[in-house]
Amino acid sequence: MSGEPTGRSGRRPGNSGARSAILEAARKLFGANGFDRTSIRAVAGAAGVDPALVHHYFGTKRQLFAAVIELPIDPEVVLRVLDAVPLDELGATMVRTLVTLWDSELGSSAVAVLRTLVAGTEPELARSFFVEVALQRVRGRIATATDDGSGRVALVASQMLGVLTARKVIALEPLASMPVAAVVAAVGPTVQRYLTGDLG
Amino acid sequence: MSGEPTGRSGRRPGNSGARSAILEAARKLFGANGFDRTSIRAVAGAAGVDPALVHHYFGTKRQLFAAVIELPIDPEVVLRVLDAVPLDELGATMVRTLVTLWDSELGSSAVAVLRTLVAGTEPELARSFFVEVALQRVRGRIATATDDGSGRVALVASQMLGVLTARKVIALEPLASMPVAAVVAAVGPTVQRYLTGDLG
Repeated sequence: MSGEPTGRSGRRPGNSGARSAILEAARKLFGANGFDRTSIRAVAGAAGVDPALVHHYFGTKRQLFAAVIELPIDPEVVLRVLDAVPLDELGATMVRTLVTLWDSELGSSAVAVLRTLVAGTEPELARSFFVEVALQRVRGRIATATDDGSGRVALVASQMLGVLTARKVIALEPLASMPVAAVVAAVGPTVQRYLTGDLG
Repeated sequence: MSGEPTGRSGRRPGNSGARSAILEAARKLFGANGFDRTSIRAVAGAAGVDPALVHHYFGTKRQLFAAVIELPIDPEVVLRVLDAVPLDELGATMVRTLVTLWDSELGSSAVAVLRTLVAGTEPELARSFFVEVALQRVRGRIATATDDGSGRVALVASQMLGVLTARKVIALEPLASMPVAAVVAAVGPTVQRYLTGDLG
């Protein structure tokens, strides 16, 4: 453990320098090498701090990544919901969970994240988010001996990105005001087919 | 006809002032009132030029709108393709036509348009583009006595926006390198269901 104070991270009393250095190092390394090939130890080294301090401020590597791209919640929260449902309910559950999240007070942050991703200044961060963080566990669930599922989850990402853009950014009616249940009824079967259906 | 010179619009010899004034007036009026409620006459009035000069420089109102949002091609070109196919081939044709366009040398312009729309500084222009320009004629084709089709075409827009974002902006593999035919096989049935299928 370094000599940094602990137990006060909620207020960041005078430690914003170390926090910023960690975030900046993490942004650089995640951006250059992706999520999987970046370690907490490497981030700590680049920031000139002890790895324990990175954990202290940011928690897990996934939570650090979420902080870097300014995700409003730990992706683990959504991933656990998706882990828990049967495969044939995954499409509807994904749509219901994400649209409900975007409609909540966290929605404006989701739009901000989308804008960052689409602005394209850090495309590798965006790809890492989808391939190694957001979609990885779902891909693992649907993978077979002949299909690693990566095309399927990319198609899912395309549909969910589009719902976020049309509903929350452009506010395209009547999709923008459609009740969540109607969005699930319309889009859920699309996502389910991408995950487990015949793609021709 | 005003006293403006004609036949030299390709080089804009000293007329960039009038062109810019027209574009600026059009951006303001389309943004405030949408496509349908903006006339060439009103744009000309706001720009202080003769309506004939607007037609001379920009062609139809749809072409003027395309210039305002910097569309790389006249949307009429795509709309005519879609007008010509049977209803049950519309999904596959839309996906094939748009993805082929985005993969062409015009693709970077499409990404630029998407960035403008998603940046959200002019959301009314974005909504107008989808509701009154891009989707209007397709909506008319699928409308019935009990469903004006607006929810259906908004869902189509969501899927196509998402493909553009995932394939061309984020370059999410393997979707980014997927042959057009494979994208059509995967996404065509989604778009077809949104247009004419059971939405639950």
